[in-house]
Amino acid sequence: MTLSHIALLEAGAGVHEVTRLLLAIGVLLLAARALGELARYFGHPTVLGELSAGILLGPALFGRVAPEWSAWLFPSTGSSVVVLDGIRTLSVTLFLLVAGLEVDLSRISRRGKAALFVGLFGIAVPFAIGWITAKTAPEWVGYEERAGHGLGVFALFIATALSISALPVIAKTLMDLQLYKSDFGMIVIASAILNDLAGWIVFAVILGMIQSTDVAPNVWGIALLAVGFAVLMLTVGRWLLHRTLPWVQAHTAWPGGVIVFAISFALMSASVTDWIGIHAIFGAFLAGVALGDSAHLRERTRSTVAEFVSSFFAPLFFALVGLRIDFVTHFDPVVVSTVLVIACIGKIVGCGVGARLSGIAPRESIAIGFAMNARGSMEIILGLTAFQNGLIGERLLVALVIMALVTSIMSGPAIQRALARRRPARFARSMKSTTFVRALSARDTKGVVRELSAAIAVASRSDAARVESSFTEPALQPVAGVAAVCGKSDAIEWPVVALGMNRAGVSLGEAQCALVFLVLTPLSQPEAEAEILADLENTLRDESLRRKLLSVESYTELLALLRADGAAR
Amino acid sequence: MTLSHIALLEAGAGVHEVTRLLLAIGVLLLAARALGELARYFGHPTVLGELSAGILLGPALFGRVAPEWSAWLFPSTGSSVVVLDGIRTLSVTLFLLVAGLEVDLSRISRRGKAALFVGLFGIAVPFAIGWITAKTAPEWVGYEERAGHGLGVFALFIATALSISALPVIAKTLMDLQLYKSDFGMIVIASAILNDLAGWIVFAVILGMIQSTDVAPNVWGIALLAVGFAVLMLTVGRWLLHRTLPWVQAHTAWPGGVIVFAISFALMSASVTDWIGIHAIFGAFLAGVALGDSAHLRERTRSTVAEFVSSFFAPLFFALVGLRIDFVTHFDPVVVSTVLVIACIGKIVGCGVGARLSGIAPRESIAIGFAMNARGSMEIILGLTAFQNGLIGERLLVALVIMALVTSIMSGPAIQRALARRRPARFARSMKSTTFVRALSARDTKGVVRELSAAIAVASRSDAARVESSFTEPALQPVAGVAAVCGKSDAIEWPVVALGMNRAGVSLGEAQCALVFLVLTPLSQPEAEAEILADLENTLRDESLRRKLLSVESYTELLALLRADGAAR
Repeated sequence: MTLSHIALLEAGAGVHEVTRLLLAIGVLLLAARALGELARYFGHPTVLGELSAGILLGPALFGRVAPEWSAWLFPSTGSSVVVLDGIRTLSVTLFLLVAGLEVDLSRISRRGKAALFVGLFGIAVPFAIGWITAKTAPEWVGYEERAGHGLGVFALFIATALSISALPVIAKTLMDLQLYKSDFGMIVIASAILNDLAGWIVFAVILGMIQSTDVAPNVWGIALLAVGFAVLMLTVGRWLLHRTLPWVQAHTAWPGGVIVFAISFALMSASVTDWIGIHAIFGAFLAGVALGDSAHLRERTRSTVAEFVSSFFAPLFFALVGLRIDFVTHFDPVVVSTVLVIACIGKIVGCGVGARLSGIAPRESIAIGFAMNARGSMEIILGLTAFQNGLIGERLLVALVIMALVTSIMSGPAIQRALARRRPARFARSMKSTTFVRALSARDTKGVVRELSAAIAVASRSDAARVESSFTEPALQPVAGVAAVCGKSDAIEWPVVALGMNRAGVSLGEAQCALVFLVLTPLSQPEAEAEILADLENTLRDESLRRKLLSVESYTELLALLRADGAAR
Repeated sequence: MTLSHIALLEAGAGVHEVTRLLLAIGVLLLAARALGELARYFGHPTVLGELSAGILLGPALFGRVAPEWSAWLFPSTGSSVVVLDGIRTLSVTLFLLVAGLEVDLSRISRRGKAALFVGLFGIAVPFAIGWITAKTAPEWVGYEERAGHGLGVFALFIATALSISALPVIAKTLMDLQLYKSDFGMIVIASAILNDLAGWIVFAVILGMIQSTDVAPNVWGIALLAVGFAVLMLTVGRWLLHRTLPWVQAHTAWPGGVIVFAISFALMSASVTDWIGIHAIFGAFLAGVALGDSAHLRERTRSTVAEFVSSFFAPLFFALVGLRIDFVTHFDPVVVSTVLVIACIGKIVGCGVGARLSGIAPRESIAIGFAMNARGSMEIILGLTAFQNGLIGERLLVALVIMALVTSIMSGPAIQRALARRRPARFARSMKSTTFVRALSARDTKGVVRELSAAIAVASRSDAARVESSFTEPALQPVAGVAAVCGKSDAIEWPVVALGMNRAGVSLGEAQCALVFLVLTPLSQPEAEAEILADLENTLRDESLRRKLLSVESYTELLALLRADGAAR
């Protein structure tokens, strides 16, 4: 029996505590990541999958199917619960650090007026709607009378919960749509930053109020603490970081040194805010803002910290959240639909009106409303924290989580529809295992087109002769042994790309080509061809990649290669 | 009060448990990393610094200076202890995964005969010496009679503890000396792999024996389990991974997906070995070996996992180890010196003789002995695990830790001395803040040499005129706006490099140069000049780096830039 065994036993559990702990973490991590990838594959936020993993492993499914195994692996008391709680606290703190890192305060000033209008109305309207709903129909939003906290604090929480947005999810959605660096993206991100800063300060005040042991907590004192800490961190803290970061980057192993520095700084800041009573996550978030705002924090450092946290701690956190809530038992259709409806109305109308008033076109204003409507992971953290503080019941928590997921999922498609925009086509996404011909048998242009057309016909379930007849244009001038032949067809709905390889080279016109792409695009998507060709050129410009491509043995290896290169993202 | 608060409270501690936990992790992480960097700066293994951080924060120093603060931040009972124990268990498991990843089984076959001789004698000789010492003079190696375990098991442990080596430390040392890919490095690494595989199997058996509840544990049964698990993992497990890894790499976000897959796999394997009674770390190590051996595990994946674990979990682990042991109280000079002496004699003689018998030259055989003598982090983990299992007392644990550190520290210098080899000189390491002249005032060759010579004179505390007179050779033909002037002198002991910049360019001969390097090397190091020029050429080949260099404002920024680029490592 090891010391850990003993320490773990002291907390009151059986033997095999290490077995249980390692297995629980391993299983949660694997399931969260797998379902997260699945969600990503279907274009949804990964948090949807990560949370679902916890729900499936929790009381909702695993607990029902195999209650004994579930009780053994995820007991409700004992030392492994304490450890997992500790890891969850650590994870959420680090997650808020990353969320803070994404905040770039300089973005606000660049589109000041629009951001101010959207940010202001985006808070005020949902705040008012939330407050009024909670006051007039508290049972519709899941109010449960709890010891000490009256309806006033509850209404304040509902109002705040509807007002915040999820900067990381919004940024991700805009990046997917290639709008992040556009004027539109600039306004949305700046507004979301204002929104989040204000929202988290209000939330910190609410938590301070209910954590206070006084009967009548000093609201203004707590508000002053929260605002004071924020100001201190963004002035003195920022200045100190500005002086320290270059030194850390210069004198420590890269990138480990600066990552650990950032994490330690965030943990200490979090412990300070927890100590003064305005919750740890607020301190971690502000530490992230101060760190991320420093010009000395390299982009690569930022992305390394984000990668580190989002691949390990975030899946673990959301899976642990899902594990602890019984979504089936606590699902209340009235509360869920009320929360969802008022959340969407408040945010879309509020931000949309704010955008219009600042002079943005109607179509774009609606898109901004939908963009800001995404609540994602931030709402889940907010809800969970309120629940853990005894402020809300499980019915409202479930409703908030569902609202967070639904608003995030609808955000991307809604923006696309409003702006009539879609994700640009990419060649790797348009390939299938059957359209990869590792060793071409044909040796001339006509033969190659025929061979690859047959592959496309199989993949798109259409007629080979008809596919072949679509390629009437001549092959594009080959560059560096790569050739592309394009065609358009009304028989397909999505672009299909075939790749044929021949290490010895095939004669296309006068040049010898080792890689031949056949690009078939639907007539309904006139810009897809140009997008795929641009993507091909961009990807294959890299000579070492071209060389590696030729040594690929299977479609899976091809995908792995392109993915490592970033081309299949 | 949050749910985590409540769960943490159930385990029996006060309020502000979250404050305490986050602060404890933040402080440990920061101190471990900072001292780890310091150790690295002086050319020692980082584990030396990480462990020292824990010792300083533990009972040895912080506990004596500020007992109340220390008792508050690192209490000996309560829930934060349980959480930190859980994190320590997780950390050591992940550390062993990384250690396993470094094992490349194919290396053994390439230098089979030498590896077999060195590996075999490197185990047999220290094993025999350890066994005999423990049997004849048990009190000299810190034997304490403990419940249940006799002198036999203890002697077996001492023998094993002296036999293992530390593959990660050895690999790191060889890389620093640029010997990793040489024939010499090949033999050492192959021997260390054989050595570690055998050592850990024996250790797993010992642990199985003492963890068994039977009065007479079935040694052969446990040995069969350990060997059986190893064989299963390296055949069936390897085959499965070989089929699964390409799929994971092709279908998940890179590199997060494959990292989480590797970690989950290791955690599950660890929980299986813990469950069957041969300790979790053995399972994690074997999972790492099986994963690392797959041709499909890209080098970048391997280094990303290693970076992830070694920048966060490893410092935390070693700091926690240091925190729990009072090195001052339990320091016993007799035990420490006995363990150190027999460890060195056993390993150096054993490996040296093995190498000689396989036909390796005497000088290289001695170097191999010193290389294999490094025990590093592996010995610390072994000792701690034995201590936690009640097999050894704190006196022996302290002795083993000191032996691990001393053998690791002496390894690099001893190899250099035996092979008459040293680390090649690099320009960034030869610069000082005073030898960086951001804006040259001189405009011609002579003036620039004078200006930079003055800077070198300040940095090396020598006479400016004498330094200047060393530069008799003409400036090297400038390439892409970079020029170098070289000189030799007997007034300095180490190479000194000065860098002068002028954005508008200085006329050196016929060319305009924006960056001028003055390279002064001591006469005692005839090859330093060529090494520095090669390093300069290699680093400045990158056009974007040259451009960034010109916008650098201070020496610290210069170092940060070179470090991010890898040039200042």
